[in-house]
Amino acid sequence: MALLQLAISTRGQGLYEFTEAARDFLRDSGAPEGVMTVFVRHTSCSLLIQENADPSVQVDLMAFFRRLVPPTTDPSMNYISHRDEGPDDMPAHIKAALLPVSLSIPHAGGRLLLGTWQGLYLFEHRDRPHRREVVLHV
Amino acid sequence: MALLQLAISTRGQGLYEFTEAARDFLRDSGAPEGVMTVFVRHTSCSLLIQENADPSVQVDLMAFFRRLVPPTTDPSMNYISHRDEGPDDMPAHIKAALLPVSLSIPHAGGRLLLGTWQGLYLFEHRDRPHRREVVLHV
Amino acid sequence: MALLQLAISTRGQGLYEFTEAARDFLRDSGAPEGVMTVFVRHTSCSLLIQENADPSVQVDLMAFFRRLVPPTTDPSMNYISHRDEGPDDMPAHIKAALLPVSLSIPHAGGRLLLGTWQGLYLFEHRDRPHRREVVLHV
Repeated sequence: MALLQLAISTRGQGLYEFTEAARDFLRDSGAPEGVMTVFVRHTSCSLLIQENADPSVQVDLMAFFRRLVPPTTDPSMNYISHRDEGPDDMPAHIKAALLPVSLSIPHAGGRLLLGTWQGLYLFEHRDRPHRREVVLHV
Repeated sequence: MALLQLAISTRGQGLYEFTEAARDFLRDSGAPEGVMTVFVRHTSCSLLIQENADPSVQVDLMAFFRRLVPPTTDPSMNYISHRDEGPDDMPAHIKAALLPVSLSIPHAGGRLLLGTWQGLYLFEHRDRPHRREVVLHV
Repeated sequence: MALLQLAISTRGQGLYEFTEAARDFLRDSGAPEGVMTVFVRHTSCSLLIQENADPSVQVDLMAFFRRLVPPTTDPSMNYISHRDEGPDDMPAHIKAALLPVSLSIPHAGGRLLLGTWQGLYLFEHRDRPHRREVVLHV
């Protein structure tokens, strides 16, 4: 068994890919077959597996989630009470509830069994820069 | 390997924390390093990892999901056909689809690698009291 | 350890149950106790654990997600730019972000510890027929 704590520096809301770091970790671990667990240690960002080919998919995804859970400056969010850290604070917690905090990805022959178009992302929901910790385990 | 079936009694919609029960189970198991799997055996409640510091986060989370998936007495839910067990019936199934049924949490040195602010919750979506079963495995 | 790549043929949006295939795989593997990982290798369909008793639950679930993320022919989706493969293209990616790509299900005594009403489904988000790959690992 092997464990890696991966640090990802974010610069505002968006998707930060770490597929290569996960592949490197799996290769270095020498694990022949099993499951990689990915876990994010925060309540205001998420994990996401999504298309890594066409960048417009990511733009549209961001736009959808911003409409589903707008900043608390939006009148539709008047009922929100938790506003300590600005208009992106509570929406970040809500998106962190809607999107995955852990992923389990089978691997075999030293390769993650991701589909052709699947990339691994940290989905940052906060505006200000953060240092995020993702735990990888095989 | 160790397995625990945890029973959680709920008294209406809300978040029921079981972080301590998961920590106790991990310690009692003596497992040195690996992954804890958490699984809920129902289709009308969910698991959730969320902030356990400021209670207003939980109030706002509940309010968001009640607006996203209102009771079927709300006119916006006129299209819903499954109403056998009352206005909270089908909304509970929808929220159970949107939120996690399983979680995978790495652990090392006898400790769950949860972040500082992360707590483990059962998210009850039904109004009436229920006895919920959560399976923990390390 | 055992690994199965399950192929599921889909004929338009909907839920395709594979609970029996997962049970068969577990039994054939002979694994005494542990966790089954289920992983879908696509970014335009999802996994789902939901009620397998009353068919109206599935009809209503489909209707909810179609209203939450309508086809891009709907005026509310005017902001979507990724439309290469038709009006169900980007909504499929969004639903694939909202719903699970991996599940972890404990098993013991040769049986998956699913609840009485829980069935395992592939949730197809595209209109045209697809051949989907789901990886099972115990």
